[in-house]
Amino acid sequence: MALEKRVQAWLEEEWARLRPFLPPSAPLLIAVSGGPDSLALLHVLQEIFPAEQLVAAHLHHGWREEADAEAEFVRQTAVSWGIACFIEEVDVVGLAREQALSLEEAGRKARYDFFARLATKIGAKAVAVGHHADDQAETVLMHLLRGSGLAGLRGMLPISPLPGAPDILLLRPLLAVSRAAIEAYCKTYDLQPVFDATNEDTTFFRNRLRHELLPLLAGYNPQIKARLQHMAAVVAADYAFLDELADEKYTAVLRESGSDWLALDRAGWLALPLSLRRAALRRAVWQLRADLRDVGFQPIEQARLVAEKDATGGQTTLPGGLVLTVEYERLTIAADPDVLLFDEPQIVEDTAVPLPVPGRVQLANGWVIESELVSGMDLAHIQSNPDPWTAYVDGGDEPLFVRGRQPGERLRPLGMSGQSAKLKVMMINRKIPARLREKWPIIDSASGLAWLVGHGIDERVKVTAVAQTIVRLHCRKT
Amino acid sequence: MALEKRVQAWLEEEWARLRPFLPPSAPLLIAVSGGPDSLALLHVLQEIFPAEQLVAAHLHHGWREEADAEAEFVRQTAVSWGIACFIEEVDVVGLAREQALSLEEAGRKARYDFFARLATKIGAKAVAVGHHADDQAETVLMHLLRGSGLAGLRGMLPISPLPGAPDILLLRPLLAVSRAAIEAYCKTYDLQPVFDATNEDTTFFRNRLRHELLPLLAGYNPQIKARLQHMAAVVAADYAFLDELADEKYTAVLRESGSDWLALDRAGWLALPLSLRRAALRRAVWQLRADLRDVGFQPIEQARLVAEKDATGGQTTLPGGLVLTVEYERLTIAADPDVLLFDEPQIVEDTAVPLPVPGRVQLANGWVIESELVSGMDLAHIQSNPDPWTAYVDGGDEPLFVRGRQPGERLRPLGMSGQSAKLKVMMINRKIPARLREKWPIIDSASGLAWLVGHGIDERVKVTAVAQTIVRLHCRKT
Repeated sequence: MALEKRVQAWLEEEWARLRPFLPPSAPLLIAVSGGPDSLALLHVLQEIFPAEQLVAAHLHHGWREEADAEAEFVRQTAVSWGIACFIEEVDVVGLAREQALSLEEAGRKARYDFFARLATKIGAKAVAVGHHADDQAETVLMHLLRGSGLAGLRGMLPISPLPGAPDILLLRPLLAVSRAAIEAYCKTYDLQPVFDATNEDTTFFRNRLRHELLPLLAGYNPQIKARLQHMAAVVAADYAFLDELADEKYTAVLRESGSDWLALDRAGWLALPLSLRRAALRRAVWQLRADLRDVGFQPIEQARLVAEKDATGGQTTLPGGLVLTVEYERLTIAADPDVLLFDEPQIVEDTAVPLPVPGRVQLANGWVIESELVSGMDLAHIQSNPDPWTAYVDGGDEPLFVRGRQPGERLRPLGMSGQSAKLKVMMINRKIPARLREKWPIIDSASGLAWLVGHGIDERVKVTAVAQTIVRLHCRKT
Repeated sequence: MALEKRVQAWLEEEWARLRPFLPPSAPLLIAVSGGPDSLALLHVLQEIFPAEQLVAAHLHHGWREEADAEAEFVRQTAVSWGIACFIEEVDVVGLAREQALSLEEAGRKARYDFFARLATKIGAKAVAVGHHADDQAETVLMHLLRGSGLAGLRGMLPISPLPGAPDILLLRPLLAVSRAAIEAYCKTYDLQPVFDATNEDTTFFRNRLRHELLPLLAGYNPQIKARLQHMAAVVAADYAFLDELADEKYTAVLRESGSDWLALDRAGWLALPLSLRRAALRRAVWQLRADLRDVGFQPIEQARLVAEKDATGGQTTLPGGLVLTVEYERLTIAADPDVLLFDEPQIVEDTAVPLPVPGRVQLANGWVIESELVSGMDLAHIQSNPDPWTAYVDGGDEPLFVRGRQPGERLRPLGMSGQSAKLKVMMINRKIPARLREKWPIIDSASGLAWLVGHGIDERVKVTAVAQTIVRLHCRKT
């Protein structure tokens, strides 16, 4: 199929997505280096769109000798076709030095910055570039070798947000067209590019791929390029679909989060298929470390195994200085796992602190325990109190204390027919995570423990009809 | 991690899937060639399972000189470890000649056939083989080069059905273990394999990969093997998940099917994401051509574009001699698209055929049109007839005929305020596919058309209170 028809067909197939970005009122920017790819692209697009709608953009790389001639060529070509042309000169060498980038990276950055600025200035919503199928094969192979994950196997996308300007689309209409077809097109229309595309914008690594590895791989399979392109197309669609599902499922299992921590619902996470369990962990890392795009296979796999296997207390590190901790119903991921303590009441002193009645004792992270005398309350109402963070106790005359547990301590939980239980066992049964147990607040008095905060009072202090003083205890976050 | 622990951990992680296949009562078969991989595997498994539960299986390849010595070595090793051992000699060269296979294919077939037969005989439900991580990297690279689709990028699976015996599991407990780790294990336990694993069971293509391409790729990325293994692990999970969803969605859009044709609901198919639209077409081909496992990217892509774009009448070929046809609400895929005609009424004669009253005219593929006189029917009942395949007409005294349409013919559809419409336009509006229009039955009489079968009678023949003879026409498949 001729190049024009292929680009036309591509535009039609993608039109639903492209339409809002290509209204007749807005110009379409075309990045034109002067090489065969972008020259053919400009020529094809002026067959499809009115010339007035097109704008050529050329970055004059200060660092290349031929740059003047190239810029002039692009300007003249655009003018002769009736197309507006913007040229900007950037000192790429200076930019590279200044921002500690390779020349290639600096050139790429300068180009996309220029396109974004120019598009905004002239009201363009899309920028078309000349990347073709041979570029795509190289990109896929490069990602495959470098190990950038399934995302990398997609190669370049036919439509993606312009780097640095997510509201503007970057279009690659020639992505399925081979270099040979582009060169044939140039010949047919007598387009005479100023330089050889095979030397354009290539890093050392890419050059080795192009001139050494791809020819060698063609000895194994002459169709290797087509093969890599097809793989990219298949993976891109599969990835897009999985990505959307993974977003949805991640949101569903994300229980709570702060700026530097989050907690996943473990049962929900365990119920996901393997593919989405991995994806959810990856998303969790990205949520806390947005700039960490390359999260390798192994740390995610290690975290998955720990999260699946260890019932509670298991921990493993994740990239970006994060730690995953397995709790009973939660998987927490945080830079400092201890920060999660603010979620739960924890004592601050190692010794017992007197709790006056009425009065309060301050706990860690804004939690408090308050006490007050109550009178005239209906006994049935007290006995049916549904709030675990409020307790009514027969105060007697003994002073109360707030402290942490001691080894071997026991409580006779109300309603357990008088049998006593170890605090440790109660805490495990009540699913208080191990790291919180040491500093979990307990209310004590001279004649014994009164309340395992949030989890039940002792039989001994229960309020009966003959209670003289009723104390209401309340634990809350302020 | 030591080899034993890794195999143990793998067994634990997969235990939910493995348990039914590894009951203490059933033996576990282990394929032992005598090379380091299978020797290490046998040694590790006898550390984990009781020796009485293990059975070594060795295929004596008639065609290799060393085969006698290898078989004897495996037998002696198994005996000295207290493990039962079965050895079978197969004339692989003869098998290759007989079935026109390469020596490697014949060897592979002979091995799996032997394992399947032996497993069935001794009641084993699983066979373990020694494929390791280096084999996996080679397999992935081989599939990548040969272009066997995303399925191929999964490489070998840790657990899969045994080829030719889907009820028996093929296990690869060493799939994540490197060749180096296996060799180190052999050294630690002083296991002395009879031959060099690097020359075991390798085709020319695989040998080139191992000795030429992989070392070269390591020059681009020293971690290339790990990279390929991780890719396989990621793709395997993503593929498994997508595959399950694709099965589900395919079933949902499959409208009807026969042994050599099927029809998809087009609207449902169009509503699927790209990934699943491709997968559904692939499944459709597999449903009709079960042995055609390698369906390339391009025919599926071509079919997808035709199926998406062409409103109706579009056709394209698919592998296996299949043809996809776009109809209004359906995508039909069939070896012979005409076979689908049996679904719809079509005339058989090119000339008009008299329809006696009462009487019948035979159509194609078992369809008939029947006529009878009716009397005593309530007019309201006739006018509210809901069945498009039944028509009541004022018969007058004119003979009726069944025939196909002629160019330019018009009908005044009942209820359209007397306006006439071209039959062709009516057929298009009623979504009669183009290929069915020529032979779609029409009931004609001397004074004009009476019924476009299934789609409405002419105003002229409508039954009123003064009708003398009422004819009931009925079209049905017998």
